[in-house]
Amino acid sequence: MSIAGLNQVVKRMHFNQLLGIRVTRTHSDGVTIECPLRQELMNAMGVLHGGVTATMADAAVGISLWRHNNGSRPHTTVEMKLNYLAPVVKDRIVARARLVRVGQHLCVGHVDLFEGRTKRVGIAIVTYMML
Amino acid sequence: MSIAGLNQVVKRMHFNQLLGIRVTRTHSDGVTIECPLRQELMNAMGVLHGGVTATMADAAVGISLWRHNNGSRPHTTVEMKLNYLAPVVKDRIVARARLVRVGQHLCVGHVDLFEGRTKRVGIAIVTYMML
Amino acid sequence: MSIAGLNQVVKRMHFNQLLGIRVTRTHSDGVTIECPLRQELMNAMGVLHGGVTATMADAAVGISLWRHNNGSRPHTTVEMKLNYLAPVVKDRIVARARLVRVGQHLCVGHVDLFEGRTKRVGIAIVTYMML
Amino acid sequence: MSIAGLNQVVKRMHFNQLLGIRVTRTHSDGVTIECPLRQELMNAMGVLHGGVTATMADAAVGISLWRHNNGSRPHTTVEMKLNYLAPVVKDRIVARARLVRVGQHLCVGHVDLFEGRTKRVGIAIVTYMML
Repeated sequence: MSIAGLNQVVKRMHFNQLLGIRVTRTHSDGVTIECPLRQELMNAMGVLHGGVTATMADAAVGISLWRHNNGSRPHTTVEMKLNYLAPVVKDRIVARARLVRVGQHLCVGHVDLFEGRTKRVGIAIVTYMML
Repeated sequence: MSIAGLNQVVKRMHFNQLLGIRVTRTHSDGVTIECPLRQELMNAMGVLHGGVTATMADAAVGISLWRHNNGSRPHTTVEMKLNYLAPVVKDRIVARARLVRVGQHLCVGHVDLFEGRTKRVGIAIVTYMML
Repeated sequence: MSIAGLNQVVKRMHFNQLLGIRVTRTHSDGVTIECPLRQELMNAMGVLHGGVTATMADAAVGISLWRHNNGSRPHTTVEMKLNYLAPVVKDRIVARARLVRVGQHLCVGHVDLFEGRTKRVGIAIVTYMML
Repeated sequence: MSIAGLNQVVKRMHFNQLLGIRVTRTHSDGVTIECPLRQELMNAMGVLHGGVTATMADAAVGISLWRHNNGSRPHTTVEMKLNYLAPVVKDRIVARARLVRVGQHLCVGHVDLFEGRTKRVGIAIVTYMML
């Protein structure tokens, strides 16, 4: 499934649309998604709200899984864990997800989060269940 | 600090505003916040996006901490962990945060998440660092 | 299932035996287990090793689930999350587990960890899968 | 600090000794530790107890940090998160830790866990605080 095709899917995910998330790369084991920063996504201190980072982690694994299954199986997030390593203050937030386990019922993804292309600002583990 | 006062603070947290989060109760050990569901907060399957739930958990502990310190000390999320127990499909999502440790540097909150008043849909642990 | 009956089961769990874990209370929603401190369970700094605390959290939910199902269904840990709130230095470590979701496939437990009877030293969330 | 030197340190960590943990490799960003399986480390179902895996994750990051600081600063585990990807049934469990953030106060490590040399059985994130 192409990047353009995935972005058609993302358009139907309302909250991802509200944030401005789009897929920018595909990999053998996952996808990279991005979201440009803007004031509505920030907290009171002028840094990106932790909820946006969490949304990126969740979405990056969900879209990776959607692509892996070619959209054939619905899934839902079971649990998520994020560590925030540095504040995100400019440019965009980027999430690179890797599927580390794709089982019959449970799938686990690991996510590296970046401010811009290279500054790592977080890591996450997300578990999905196939419905 | 009153509920009205806290909601004045929340208005300056842009992303919380974008979602429609407001404080509805205060407790000796934390706060309860709410967010009505609307299509923009949903995912493609017609259920609340996991990123909204994560934002609620993060915000509920952050606002509890803000209140605990009377706004005198800035803080930032260090890490967050959520378990999704059931899909959220109607009414509103409610997060009740309890501060379980308020240290010199690190603070830990536990959050129960509900669809409406009583149906538990998630639990979370959130760690903040005082800056 | 009685406390004595559960402790017969725990005796077959080799690692729990090595540590000295035993069930001390049962509740409608879980169990309480204990482990007396001794030098072999400590780290180099004279405090309880974090791995013992993690073992207690895992075991407390596992035994709660074993009791809930009356030993009729095997299960395995899917994921675990602990926050350490204070060092454990004396007496014993106590874990009180509560099953917060018992589903067809996935079960989630919440654990409060104590040094002795009342000093809370940690909280944990543990997910099990029924096999 | 050499592998032999690190193993001298590990000998003073009582619980790591009880399990049989030893350092087998050092890397620019962390260490690899191992623990051979034996019956005392198993649960009732003949697979490695999840508490051993958790101990490995905690220890691998702690030893990496000890090495990073050349033993000059005490530290303590703040929180830990593990996902179990497959049961561990034979040979040994191996933990490869990478320090992904070493801050003034907080340090975060990522751990890949293996059965033997190559079969990945778990991933973990561990946060330490410098005392």
